[in-house]
Amino acid sequence: MTTLRLVLAYDGSRYAGWQRQSNALAIQQVVEDALSDLLDGRIVVHGAGRTDAGVHALAQVAHLESVDARRALPLKALVHGTNHRLPPDIRVRAAQRMADGFHARKSTAGKTYVYRLWPGRVVPPTWAPTCVAQPRPLDFAALRTAARSLAGRHDFSAFALAGGSHRSAVRRLFAVTVDTEGEQIVLRFAGEGFLRGMVRSLIGTLLEVGSGDRPPGDIVRLLAPGTTRDDAGPTAPAHGLCLEHVVYPARWQPLDGYRA
Amino acid sequence: MTTLRLVLAYDGSRYAGWQRQSNALAIQQVVEDALSDLLDGRIVVHGAGRTDAGVHALAQVAHLESVDARRALPLKALVHGTNHRLPPDIRVRAAQRMADGFHARKSTAGKTYVYRLWPGRVVPPTWAPTCVAQPRPLDFAALRTAARSLAGRHDFSAFALAGGSHRSAVRRLFAVTVDTEGEQIVLRFAGEGFLRGMVRSLIGTLLEVGSGDRPPGDIVRLLAPGTTRDDAGPTAPAHGLCLEHVVYPARWQPLDGYRA
Repeated sequence: MTTLRLVLAYDGSRYAGWQRQSNALAIQQVVEDALSDLLDGRIVVHGAGRTDAGVHALAQVAHLESVDARRALPLKALVHGTNHRLPPDIRVRAAQRMADGFHARKSTAGKTYVYRLWPGRVVPPTWAPTCVAQPRPLDFAALRTAARSLAGRHDFSAFALAGGSHRSAVRRLFAVTVDTEGEQIVLRFAGEGFLRGMVRSLIGTLLEVGSGDRPPGDIVRLLAPGTTRDDAGPTAPAHGLCLEHVVYPARWQPLDGYRA
Repeated sequence: MTTLRLVLAYDGSRYAGWQRQSNALAIQQVVEDALSDLLDGRIVVHGAGRTDAGVHALAQVAHLESVDARRALPLKALVHGTNHRLPPDIRVRAAQRMADGFHARKSTAGKTYVYRLWPGRVVPPTWAPTCVAQPRPLDFAALRTAARSLAGRHDFSAFALAGGSHRSAVRRLFAVTVDTEGEQIVLRFAGEGFLRGMVRSLIGTLLEVGSGDRPPGDIVRLLAPGTTRDDAGPTAPAHGLCLEHVVYPARWQPLDGYRA
């Protein structure tokens, strides 16, 4: 039996996040409904990461376990047939057949999240759905010093949502970078794994550093044991965040694939 | 008497372009209505360039001639008061007081337009309003060779909308560049001035070169006298295009200004 891997992009604005919920519309549910209709059977998909309400994705990854009827459907028909049944704010970009055992979440080697800021109070309308206003000027040197100190294996308890279900708050970040793209300020977080709410509380804290409200060295203090969420900065707004990339170990090569 | 210069950003999706029209909603009209309401008098604004229906702007420039009541309003109040009266898809980013004689269109030294493409059939929803699907792979070397040949002073008759009101089709382009930003393919056109429809017919023609349907040297042939619009490629879709920047000679420094 083979497993199907989907690469999905979405505008998270009107959704309660990736993960299916009983009382609000989640992206997972909309994708499952579209696939179930196309494949004429109850389909469950597993996402690589649960993006929060309002968070976007350029390349979320999900898998579904294949059954006979589905195996017969060409991947191109699967992609376009699913898109035909999805609302325009969710799109399947690619479908791949994977060896049995592949799991979108459990098999990951890492993920990259990107956060977009606009310098000033007024965000241009074309960027408003994906970019957060940053009215105060930022000290890029301080911001980059703080960002660099996040790389490595640390206890991120101070940046985890209270009530999270994680057993350990230790995670490895590969790199946190601060760049500009045109006038936008773009922060990228590449890591092995992330706690719930972690990227947005890191952003909120980094912006306090960039605004001069917190010394860059404070980040190192927050990574020490015994700190709590109250010690870190506020949670940055969701709509600036986007799941940009999910990385898998090289051994998980697709058996075949279609990219739209 | 001073003149007020406004910097505007808009999502052109639901508008018939910048210029006021009798039978469709134009951005100029919406801006004039908001200013007229704020300043309690009939306001006319003059834009630096008329963007077509569906074309966006990051920094369109417009001016209005000041009268007594307006001169008294602080620029910060002018910006936020106007934004309060505008729909969310049009924003005033800045207001500046200019010496008498400044004209948003007549005083320009040049403009930059940007065009965004997404490689593939399926554009991620967050970029779909600003980015056009490019299903066929592009030969970047050919595309760049053709783009470079556009720089300079040329007769752009082959790229002008039929029925345009221009006296001469000669324009000077400073540079046309082809880059990537993440997965997006971004073409930038910097020039002294542009004919109506010129950027989008240049794009349509350049994409034929990039797709292998037209040799890169064809562009030079199209810039020779005696060619017509039929000789060039199709007009690319409007929503990929954005007026990114308007340049004025250094002598037009603002007397004072407010940037949101």
